[in-house]
Amino acid sequence: MLNSDTICAIATPHGMGAIATIRVSGNKTFSVVAGLFQRNGKRLAVEDIVSHKAYYGHLININGDLLDEVVTTFFRAPHSFTGEDSAEISVHGSVYIQQKLLQVLVECGCRMAEAGEFTRRAFVNRKFDLAQAEAIADLIGSESEAAHRVAINQLKGGFSKELQVMRSKLLEMTALMELELDFSEEDVEFADRSQLLALLQETLSHVNRLKDSFRLGNAIKNGVPVAIVGQTNTGKSTLLNTLLGEDRAIVSDIAGTTRDTIEETLNIDGILFRFIDTAGLRQTDETIEKIGIDRSYKKIKEATLIIGMLDSSIDYESMLLSAKEMIEKVDFGHQQTLLCLNKVDVLPDQGETLLEKIRQDLDNDKITLIRLSAKHKIGLNDLIDTLKNSQPLTHSDATLVTNVRHYEALLRASESLNSVQHGLETNLPTDLISQDLRQALYHLGSITGEITTDEVLGTIFSRFCIGK
Amino acid sequence: MLNSDTICAIATPHGMGAIATIRVSGNKTFSVVAGLFQRNGKRLAVEDIVSHKAYYGHLININGDLLDEVVTTFFRAPHSFTGEDSAEISVHGSVYIQQKLLQVLVECGCRMAEAGEFTRRAFVNRKFDLAQAEAIADLIGSESEAAHRVAINQLKGGFSKELQVMRSKLLEMTALMELELDFSEEDVEFADRSQLLALLQETLSHVNRLKDSFRLGNAIKNGVPVAIVGQTNTGKSTLLNTLLGEDRAIVSDIAGTTRDTIEETLNIDGILFRFIDTAGLRQTDETIEKIGIDRSYKKIKEATLIIGMLDSSIDYESMLLSAKEMIEKVDFGHQQTLLCLNKVDVLPDQGETLLEKIRQDLDNDKITLIRLSAKHKIGLNDLIDTLKNSQPLTHSDATLVTNVRHYEALLRASESLNSVQHGLETNLPTDLISQDLRQALYHLGSITGEITTDEVLGTIFSRFCIGK
Repeated sequence: MLNSDTICAIATPHGMGAIATIRVSGNKTFSVVAGLFQRNGKRLAVEDIVSHKAYYGHLININGDLLDEVVTTFFRAPHSFTGEDSAEISVHGSVYIQQKLLQVLVECGCRMAEAGEFTRRAFVNRKFDLAQAEAIADLIGSESEAAHRVAINQLKGGFSKELQVMRSKLLEMTALMELELDFSEEDVEFADRSQLLALLQETLSHVNRLKDSFRLGNAIKNGVPVAIVGQTNTGKSTLLNTLLGEDRAIVSDIAGTTRDTIEETLNIDGILFRFIDTAGLRQTDETIEKIGIDRSYKKIKEATLIIGMLDSSIDYESMLLSAKEMIEKVDFGHQQTLLCLNKVDVLPDQGETLLEKIRQDLDNDKITLIRLSAKHKIGLNDLIDTLKNSQPLTHSDATLVTNVRHYEALLRASESLNSVQHGLETNLPTDLISQDLRQALYHLGSITGEITTDEVLGTIFSRFCIGK
Repeated sequence: MLNSDTICAIATPHGMGAIATIRVSGNKTFSVVAGLFQRNGKRLAVEDIVSHKAYYGHLININGDLLDEVVTTFFRAPHSFTGEDSAEISVHGSVYIQQKLLQVLVECGCRMAEAGEFTRRAFVNRKFDLAQAEAIADLIGSESEAAHRVAINQLKGGFSKELQVMRSKLLEMTALMELELDFSEEDVEFADRSQLLALLQETLSHVNRLKDSFRLGNAIKNGVPVAIVGQTNTGKSTLLNTLLGEDRAIVSDIAGTTRDTIEETLNIDGILFRFIDTAGLRQTDETIEKIGIDRSYKKIKEATLIIGMLDSSIDYESMLLSAKEMIEKVDFGHQQTLLCLNKVDVLPDQGETLLEKIRQDLDNDKITLIRLSAKHKIGLNDLIDTLKNSQPLTHSDATLVTNVRHYEALLRASESLNSVQHGLETNLPTDLISQDLRQALYHLGSITGEITTDEVLGTIFSRFCIGK
């Protein structure tokens, strides 16, 4: 089917607006669109069409009715987004006109585009590689400055170039080793083993750096996961509501109100945070609540930051015990934990002395302590600053991997390269090493789409929106 | 402020899409947009800009960061929508990019456009008259084929031309009469009174035809108002839900469930119907329900069609009495009434005999009777066909007035022309007649905006969406 037919779709967001753009691409684009288009009452002849020129005129239905006054721009292959003949028709943004125009185009022999089909055609026509195509979907979905920057860098092809360089080094290595295989009876070594090893280690560490950047890249794309934990009634949901400035979580005085986890994202100065309000961590026999608590532990393990909530209005010893228990329960090693002494508004000294006391009693450098009243917004700026500063600067231009597919490919490439390294170090036969090298090349090539299957392409492009 | 500054806005519908278009218009458009735009790493010089050409390139933030890969089209004054220098920047449809670009444009000296400001500038620059400008808003808001056709006709300027012809006739009349005033001491008559009267009557009947078309035009634009009435528990809400195919109204067996009126529009074969589910018409002491019933009567008076619901499962005499009472209550003369014998599914003969019997007993030609089960969708197609056939064919190209402002202006013009007619018939002094003529000219001129105030303009353009 691909490339043989002419496709159409609404490219602008759905709904009503001042204008909307309908995109058409494929061999028949010029004849179909020009056939519906009139300037000063005259049809536009296909041979007269000037590429990249915005034509103002009337869009005429097959039955001769005026459908709309439009601006149409034709793009002649290969100088278009898809690399095919294509057109963008800018209509008045009524839902009726948009739908009607699609209907007319289909009646004229076009087909409704599938999700991502325009970008897929662009990839097939070598307008960009697969990693860049995926960057377009990320770019459209980006909700923060950081996510936008990562997507733009990937679109510019920085990531693709890095992969290219690594692949060409590995290809050279493979060529040399396979040359040895051809002359295997003569027992020559074309490639110096120690030199190969050095080259390999360099590539392997590059692959590993990219692979490891996924944790940060994923946080930037989907938000830094922050789990809000604590016993029941310590004000976890109130904090979430205060942070979001709206009543998202149900707040009540009944212990165990939040039984399922609630997630909300918040963009703080260009960094996206994903807050997870967890069920209160307490012993319970209630089945549904138990499931909620199990889920809480799972979320805590996945989180990068933990906000532990304590009720500072209860007696000091109980609170200290709670704090110690919490630290023990949630410390999975890789996270940063902030303990919030909540409800300080009910304390006469606003918790300053309390803060010092608990800091000494806990005696743990890794814990950040903040006095807070989520309800009365005391200490909220301290909390927000701590959150912001917890994140590494993302203003560097170093490539970050944000895509799970890329991460998996890098992981597999890393495994294969480790085997190659082991093989070189233990003097395994050249043909075995060469096989592992080919595996690594395959995985790295799959990221940019140099090596790919139709099935993989289908999965990738189906996550695009229609019209892209 | 108008026209002195450069404005910007998102022109496409809000939200995420494959692409989105940002519109810029005003003197500084070329310098601001070209300053942010690079092709192959080079700035586009303002003097090199070719109007109506789609430029592919990079949009660079003031700080040098790449914001997006875009297609920008410049339109040089006066060959643009607004008549000013303007540009359309087609970006990737991420919400972040759209907002960021607006922010950058504002930092470069543009101002966020007010609702309808682009169209207002087009009107001020005489790209079209006021009636055509209003047609654009109607076009964008059109939800049915009929509404779209009326708006397109108005946009093409058919209505404006009719007004023009009438106005020039009246202007000629006024000129002749005022010439008489100049020579009043000589007692001459430049204009033959009977000829003037004939001309006037022709114009008056034209104005009245346009004025009267508002009822239909308004029905096409906002939907034909159909009131669903009947005693409590006859299945009014069930019918509305069945027609809409969703659970819009709350249905229960408790009498008086629908206390407020509910309105829903439904597009049946290109005709928009506005269904109004009214509170059950019964005696009640309940205050809120009473308000609902009062409102029902108001809605019934305004409706073009009445659907009267009867419960055919109760005993025949009670139903007949209900039917007679209902006809008496809802007959305001100008409407068409359909009586539905609902709940026929519980009757053994499916209501056929019953239908004949009540038809004879009511003995009223103006009433259409339909046997129905709203719940089991029996007779629903009969009802829908009756609704469709109740509407005059809207496929004619005759001008329809859809705008309340135009209707009011025509109404006032009609009143003034009636005074002129009376004056001519009773030989009133020329200066009095001339004054009424000027009034009529003023009202007709206000429709196309030949005579208008800034306040009126403000009201008109504020109902546009931002970006238009």
